[in-house]
Amino acid sequence: MIIDVHGHLSAPAELYAYKAGLLSHRGAHGRGKPSMTDDQLREALYAPQSSFGNISHMDHLNEAGIDVQLISPRPYQAMHSEQPAFIVDWFTEETNDIIHRVSQIEPRFKGMAGIPQSMDTTPEHWMKEVRRTVEQLGFVGVMLNPDPYEGLKQPPSLADRFWYPVWEALSELDVPALIHSAAARPPARESYSLHFIQEETLAVDALIRSKVFDDFPDLKIIVSHGGGAIPYQRGRYLPGAVRSGVRFEDQLRKLYYDSCLYTSDSIELLLKAVGTDRVLFGSEKPGTGSAKDPETGRWFDDIKLLIDDIEWLSEKQRSALFEDNARTLFTL
Amino acid sequence: MIIDVHGHLSAPAELYAYKAGLLSHRGAHGRGKPSMTDDQLREALYAPQSSFGNISHMDHLNEAGIDVQLISPRPYQAMHSEQPAFIVDWFTEETNDIIHRVSQIEPRFKGMAGIPQSMDTTPEHWMKEVRRTVEQLGFVGVMLNPDPYEGLKQPPSLADRFWYPVWEALSELDVPALIHSAAARPPARESYSLHFIQEETLAVDALIRSKVFDDFPDLKIIVSHGGGAIPYQRGRYLPGAVRSGVRFEDQLRKLYYDSCLYTSDSIELLLKAVGTDRVLFGSEKPGTGSAKDPETGRWFDDIKLLIDDIEWLSEKQRSALFEDNARTLFTL
Amino acid sequence: MIIDVHGHLSAPAELYAYKAGLLSHRGAHGRGKPSMTDDQLREALYAPQSSFGNISHMDHLNEAGIDVQLISPRPYQAMHSEQPAFIVDWFTEETNDIIHRVSQIEPRFKGMAGIPQSMDTTPEHWMKEVRRTVEQLGFVGVMLNPDPYEGLKQPPSLADRFWYPVWEALSELDVPALIHSAAARPPARESYSLHFIQEETLAVDALIRSKVFDDFPDLKIIVSHGGGAIPYQRGRYLPGAVRSGVRFEDQLRKLYYDSCLYTSDSIELLLKAVGTDRVLFGSEKPGTGSAKDPETGRWFDDIKLLIDDIEWLSEKQRSALFEDNARTLFTL
Amino acid sequence: MIIDVHGHLSAPAELYAYKAGLLSHRGAHGRGKPSMTDDQLREALYAPQSSFGNISHMDHLNEAGIDVQLISPRPYQAMHSEQPAFIVDWFTEETNDIIHRVSQIEPRFKGMAGIPQSMDTTPEHWMKEVRRTVEQLGFVGVMLNPDPYEGLKQPPSLADRFWYPVWEALSELDVPALIHSAAARPPARESYSLHFIQEETLAVDALIRSKVFDDFPDLKIIVSHGGGAIPYQRGRYLPGAVRSGVRFEDQLRKLYYDSCLYTSDSIELLLKAVGTDRVLFGSEKPGTGSAKDPETGRWFDDIKLLIDDIEWLSEKQRSALFEDNARTLFTL
Amino acid sequence: MIIDVHGHLSAPAELYAYKAGLLSHRGAHGRGKPSMTDDQLREALYAPQSSFGNISHMDHLNEAGIDVQLISPRPYQAMHSEQPAFIVDWFTEETNDIIHRVSQIEPRFKGMAGIPQSMDTTPEHWMKEVRRTVEQLGFVGVMLNPDPYEGLKQPPSLADRFWYPVWEALSELDVPALIHSAAARPPARESYSLHFIQEETLAVDALIRSKVFDDFPDLKIIVSHGGGAIPYQRGRYLPGAVRSGVRFEDQLRKLYYDSCLYTSDSIELLLKAVGTDRVLFGSEKPGTGSAKDPETGRWFDDIKLLIDDIEWLSEKQRSALFEDNARTLFTL
Amino acid sequence: MIIDVHGHLSAPAELYAYKAGLLSHRGAHGRGKPSMTDDQLREALYAPQSSFGNISHMDHLNEAGIDVQLISPRPYQAMHSEQPAFIVDWFTEETNDIIHRVSQIEPRFKGMAGIPQSMDTTPEHWMKEVRRTVEQLGFVGVMLNPDPYEGLKQPPSLADRFWYPVWEALSELDVPALIHSAAARPPARESYSLHFIQEETLAVDALIRSKVFDDFPDLKIIVSHGGGAIPYQRGRYLPGAVRSGVRFEDQLRKLYYDSCLYTSDSIELLLKAVGTDRVLFGSEKPGTGSAKDPETGRWFDDIKLLIDDIEWLSEKQRSALFEDNARTLFTL
Repeated sequence: MIIDVHGHLSAPAELYAYKAGLLSHRGAHGRGKPSMTDDQLREALYAPQSSFGNISHMDHLNEAGIDVQLISPRPYQAMHSEQPAFIVDWFTEETNDIIHRVSQIEPRFKGMAGIPQSMDTTPEHWMKEVRRTVEQLGFVGVMLNPDPYEGLKQPPSLADRFWYPVWEALSELDVPALIHSAAARPPARESYSLHFIQEETLAVDALIRSKVFDDFPDLKIIVSHGGGAIPYQRGRYLPGAVRSGVRFEDQLRKLYYDSCLYTSDSIELLLKAVGTDRVLFGSEKPGTGSAKDPETGRWFDDIKLLIDDIEWLSEKQRSALFEDNARTLFTL
Repeated sequence: MIIDVHGHLSAPAELYAYKAGLLSHRGAHGRGKPSMTDDQLREALYAPQSSFGNISHMDHLNEAGIDVQLISPRPYQAMHSEQPAFIVDWFTEETNDIIHRVSQIEPRFKGMAGIPQSMDTTPEHWMKEVRRTVEQLGFVGVMLNPDPYEGLKQPPSLADRFWYPVWEALSELDVPALIHSAAARPPARESYSLHFIQEETLAVDALIRSKVFDDFPDLKIIVSHGGGAIPYQRGRYLPGAVRSGVRFEDQLRKLYYDSCLYTSDSIELLLKAVGTDRVLFGSEKPGTGSAKDPETGRWFDDIKLLIDDIEWLSEKQRSALFEDNARTLFTL
Repeated sequence: MIIDVHGHLSAPAELYAYKAGLLSHRGAHGRGKPSMTDDQLREALYAPQSSFGNISHMDHLNEAGIDVQLISPRPYQAMHSEQPAFIVDWFTEETNDIIHRVSQIEPRFKGMAGIPQSMDTTPEHWMKEVRRTVEQLGFVGVMLNPDPYEGLKQPPSLADRFWYPVWEALSELDVPALIHSAAARPPARESYSLHFIQEETLAVDALIRSKVFDDFPDLKIIVSHGGGAIPYQRGRYLPGAVRSGVRFEDQLRKLYYDSCLYTSDSIELLLKAVGTDRVLFGSEKPGTGSAKDPETGRWFDDIKLLIDDIEWLSEKQRSALFEDNARTLFTL
Repeated sequence: MIIDVHGHLSAPAELYAYKAGLLSHRGAHGRGKPSMTDDQLREALYAPQSSFGNISHMDHLNEAGIDVQLISPRPYQAMHSEQPAFIVDWFTEETNDIIHRVSQIEPRFKGMAGIPQSMDTTPEHWMKEVRRTVEQLGFVGVMLNPDPYEGLKQPPSLADRFWYPVWEALSELDVPALIHSAAARPPARESYSLHFIQEETLAVDALIRSKVFDDFPDLKIIVSHGGGAIPYQRGRYLPGAVRSGVRFEDQLRKLYYDSCLYTSDSIELLLKAVGTDRVLFGSEKPGTGSAKDPETGRWFDDIKLLIDDIEWLSEKQRSALFEDNARTLFTL
Repeated sequence: MIIDVHGHLSAPAELYAYKAGLLSHRGAHGRGKPSMTDDQLREALYAPQSSFGNISHMDHLNEAGIDVQLISPRPYQAMHSEQPAFIVDWFTEETNDIIHRVSQIEPRFKGMAGIPQSMDTTPEHWMKEVRRTVEQLGFVGVMLNPDPYEGLKQPPSLADRFWYPVWEALSELDVPALIHSAAARPPARESYSLHFIQEETLAVDALIRSKVFDDFPDLKIIVSHGGGAIPYQRGRYLPGAVRSGVRFEDQLRKLYYDSCLYTSDSIELLLKAVGTDRVLFGSEKPGTGSAKDPETGRWFDDIKLLIDDIEWLSEKQRSALFEDNARTLFTL
Repeated sequence: MIIDVHGHLSAPAELYAYKAGLLSHRGAHGRGKPSMTDDQLREALYAPQSSFGNISHMDHLNEAGIDVQLISPRPYQAMHSEQPAFIVDWFTEETNDIIHRVSQIEPRFKGMAGIPQSMDTTPEHWMKEVRRTVEQLGFVGVMLNPDPYEGLKQPPSLADRFWYPVWEALSELDVPALIHSAAARPPARESYSLHFIQEETLAVDALIRSKVFDDFPDLKIIVSHGGGAIPYQRGRYLPGAVRSGVRFEDQLRKLYYDSCLYTSDSIELLLKAVGTDRVLFGSEKPGTGSAKDPETGRWFDDIKLLIDDIEWLSEKQRSALFEDNARTLFTL
């Protein structure tokens, strides 16, 4: 059985037309609602789409053998840095509601909540939507953006006390957070996709050097895309760790990482760096990786095949990666 | 026969989902294209829509007796202030292309071009799209936003030489411009809809006190929504005009105005203030005014009925308002 | 009898030389005082002045049949945006004191207080001067500037809780406020005179859509110059009002408006839009309108004649406009 | 005979009321003109004024034995940092015109031109008014403000090439400049009066270490108020001068200084520091110093008496200070 | 006996290499420590240095007959405006520790504490280091920078309540503060050395016009370099003081001044302006003045010789200047 | 034989004390010179240092078998973002001069030039120092900082034409550039060390997607620390590359990478991702990695041992990594 902790909602155009409207009238039309029928929702899941490589979302899951997928909003659409703040609330709540409808239509999906992370409101305010989705809609986790300014300016580091209300609520609700940034607006030099990586690098660096896990020992944080640059660059930290008397591997192992890397050698490096008990299967399918490798005929984002290629993994380790680690972390 | 100079495109959700995508990936996905079939375009015109009062765009035209409608992009969706500038280019060009397709599907429509007015490019650059739409797509005019910053900060006044490349191109192409602002983003205090009025007030004030018409005697400018506040407040200008030896009415009559006001007394005041030869029939239908008055059963935006209510108009004047003034100004 | 609720102080040059001094030494000379004798004050009232069309302030009142005039400081001189804040206090207080002296010299005048609206102090602080003028000097109302930044940047909307201390004090003192902005400094594109109109438009829009009158049911607000653009553009609000189940006319009628428009058709439109019981006679005489119409020989700001021209008004309505509405609103 | 190179215009209140108007309407009333009769101008010169210690400007000159006074605008009123730039032009030109009228009424006065130093125009533009006053109105010099931002932000140092168009025009016209700053607006911590001193300190420091006098050997610069802090603090420069092989006294002597210090020991220190041939009689009378010392009965600004107190001065040196140095520098 | 209240630490290069490191890694290397042996500290005191005129710090003291010198950090190295704030703490504390070590090596030195004046922390925080140095290390006073922004922007004036926690702590600890600014970063127009003078001028002006000494009657403030420009320019204050009924000399005498001026006439002017009981011997030796005058063979900063040159001083006055005033002010 | 392309200067404290001075006086002391004897330079190379793990720079080279080391300035000390710009020029030039002296003392070293990358000057200006070091001092390459703002704000991307003068000069001089950022100042969230990685990630991303190598086919760029995150995250690029018809590996192979990663698996991943002909031996020795692994007894930065551990490398490939690739790229 495979549990994929890193999937995103596939929704009809109406959701994004609704968003475009909010960004244009900035609330002057009132909240409204992205109207779509269950049939439209089904079509978004079951119909082939060109951006998915001409198969459907469900086809992707079937082909890759994914039995359960935790889905959150499309990150680059999150619009956390837009104003006024209430349109961020509206869009996030509507998106979470659609995730909920989708998970009722197709029980293979479980909800990971988007959070309305406007910097004009407070983390305490953000947590209201987290509580609603977990307590009322049965969501199993959240997706957390470490850069709600979306590249416009520097946010507080994840080590900063600014984030403590988030850690507190997540600990209390006992749901994991998947660290995943959103858009990257000018003047950022990088695309949103590379911004994900940069922010994951910063997130790992900030969290493992902070006191967050001393203060919130039950907090569960998963870093997307295999932890950004850190596992590959972890050698830079080793001398400093020796000097301060800690094992850097133990530092890294405070966090969890998903396997969402599209080369086998990178996944292997990750597993060696953090241990097989700290990696969760994540494919972001369908998404960035949804093209076929012309040489192998494989989907680039068929992570299972990449893991299968790693010969030294035991069955138990494979089972941990595909299912058990997720079951330990999440209430599924 | 009625020619409506002030209508906007009714397009499928896919156009705005495309826009939402641009605003999220900021170009990282490449330009792409809002894919939609002719059937989808037709549905957006011929199917009833709740936001139009549960009838279709074409029903509106039919009920109001509008024979020809000049359509431009939905102004509040223009996103002129978004960055990077090339996404403004892309979205404007795609929207103009859809206007062109719509006008081929339904010849009752003529195109009024959206202009990619990013302040990170130049008016000279903007005019390339104007030339393309007029020369290649047969558009009959343009819609010009006097505030491309969309409320974020103060733009140059329309009296400023900044705008001369626009006046020059419009004069050369011999197409009128409909002054119509777009969104109003924070920190603006007003909604986009009131921003229209404020910007029209500023536009009339700036243009009639400028040398623009001395320098561009053939320029044709139509101000939306009956000229903002100016006709109603024109008394404030009379003493100054007397002192400087001009007739203020002559100043006002350098410009044209549309009739897009939803009360008969306001239209009447406009006609008295600027003359019946300076007002063009404009309804913005379907749009802001598309609800039914529960007392009269009329559509608020059925401007024809409001004009019919003005008893003192001669047949010739009515004909001028409904058709002849537009024929004089535009090449239809 | 005619009560004019919208007049401004005519003062000797020394008052403005005093202001120029404050703006130059920024307080380094100490507060000082604009020294002027009662004779100088009288001369400013009784002597013809070129900027008034070569007759005196009192001549204007006599010719127009104005029996009582409520006078406030010259708005464009208010200097609310100047720093440090204490020079705004000083100049406002000195001006109010001169209004008081003038109203003792010539009892036809009643005081409307200027308010020291520096954004570096608080609305609570502003209200001290309001209390002083009402409680100690017998002023009957205040003039309130909705844009104390004077065009430099966006102030909080009148719907914002920022203004609640003002509404609270005015309710408690039971004095009306005349909404009237002051200067318009660069980067504003408009002159101060057009800024008045723009700010009045924003003020009506903000207040009628806010909860201010729910929270302060006894608050009395008069909007200058016939409410900016709103009565003329009120048609835009009708469909939305229908949708939300309110009559827009009732919304508009939460406020009062003065008649300070210099064309008869505009005053007539105002009366139709808001009702004759919501309009107060206001002339701003002598001021912007103080020139003679070469065609009619009338003073442009002889508002009484313009009202006389409206044939359908009953005697009772005329009396309401000229006197009774003001008596209801003010304690005179 | 005494020539006072540092006096300022005494003008009627109407001039400053005119300025207050410009600062309020920001040009919306047009340029207008500060209207005042020759009698009003005479009264400003010949009538006692409380701010002058209850005697008149002319009384001051008579009592102090001043035969010729070079008068410039009141510096703190210069408003160089106000916007838009054209109101700086207008006010400066009107002030210079009044200086011209005053010097025709009372030939004891010679004009020193104010310069319209808005930072939104260019030094080249400023020099137009300098040419007009010197070539057409017979002015004998100019007053130059080294800080046209008036404390709002840091201007270019006088050593910067920004100022070269000024040096070039002054050299060509062969008129001296009196360095004298204007207002000091927040966030400056100092009053305008102390700002004078700070700017003079900066001016001497910048000019003597620059290449300005290499590039403009005929340039004549007089620093007000005895050179700010530099003569008193000149010891700080001596070691560095030794190291670079120059005599610091020679550096200081590139400039001229006025005697406008109100203690005898300070004037004496100045004379020793720069030499009696580099100091010009300046009193700024009537002005800051126009009060009587209760102990001595002297006017504080009776600089002549302070110089008389310096015993070691020869008759020739006294004559240089009182008259000859000014005659050498100016064309009188 | 001579007590010099104005000396600065002479330290090995390692201290400044440590600082350069902090400014480069911004704390990433951790606090570390500038490692230097007592021998290195001794060499910095006893070995000739080219920047001191090729003799040693101790030689300077010996040649000038200085028996005790109060030493503080080199002011221009203070780096108060650098970020993050903790590197300002670290560097200041390390420097104070080295001053302490130096004063143990060579008892002729007494410590004047540097204060970690980052504007990102609070004056309350700054005072912790003051308490440590005074209470634990036996320091006898502090050096206070009135411009912790180091020229980047305007700080609060010394008259502002911002500084009250400083005055309170100094009063309680009963230690004097030497006012002395630090660096002058762009956009400041002046060098740090001239910035000292400008800030001293501002400090005297602000303090004598404030209520600080009313609120802290036991506060002891010494202004470096003879009080900036104020004694030389004190005439400007006399008329105002007369008007407000105070003697300006009494105002000036609320403060103390050091004699650190390198010309005899300036010191003489200072003594006359403030009285011999308000001036303390200060040489800043070795430092800015440490060059030999080629004409006299004297060190420019041999202040004792300059005081010896003032003939009218009595023995008692000389003793006050050289020793007694310092003994009264400090606990030595 | 081993050629290490990534080493940095080990210099005496005096160099950094010189830098601290520049940052304090900002040029007021003049340029001066960091004075140090050849013996001091030798001590910095041959004496054990605690920050190097208690052995010397030369010991490190000897123990690791490094025969030639290309040394550039210590990157985090570069101070590119400091003002005024001329102190960046001064410090960079002095540092390059010391590198030159060091390479004459110890011929095992070759110079890689620091570049005075102040954003207040131009890339054209920067290149003067590059020409001087290459043409006059025999340097073999340069170190280029892609973020001269050092984290203060976003610089132009390396794909921007801003950098073309750099590429042009490097192509003409035929010297490689080692991409290596410098400090990371607040508000950056990361340490300078992590900033290196983030900037390398951005650099690879920008350059391989740009037209730089089309326009400068002979340009040679080496990215430090194994290319930041990109080799590890390269899977993200594969689907897009397929869509655009290029092989991503070919894109990556436009650049060169050093081996400066401190874990064997990371180096192995790098070699697989870009090929053994695109990786150069680089150790940054002594530096970040200069501590001993308590488990293995190895120096973390003994990169040779890590490469030795990769079993599948052929002798030829090893020779390429250790020596031949560097010889191909550089003129040694």
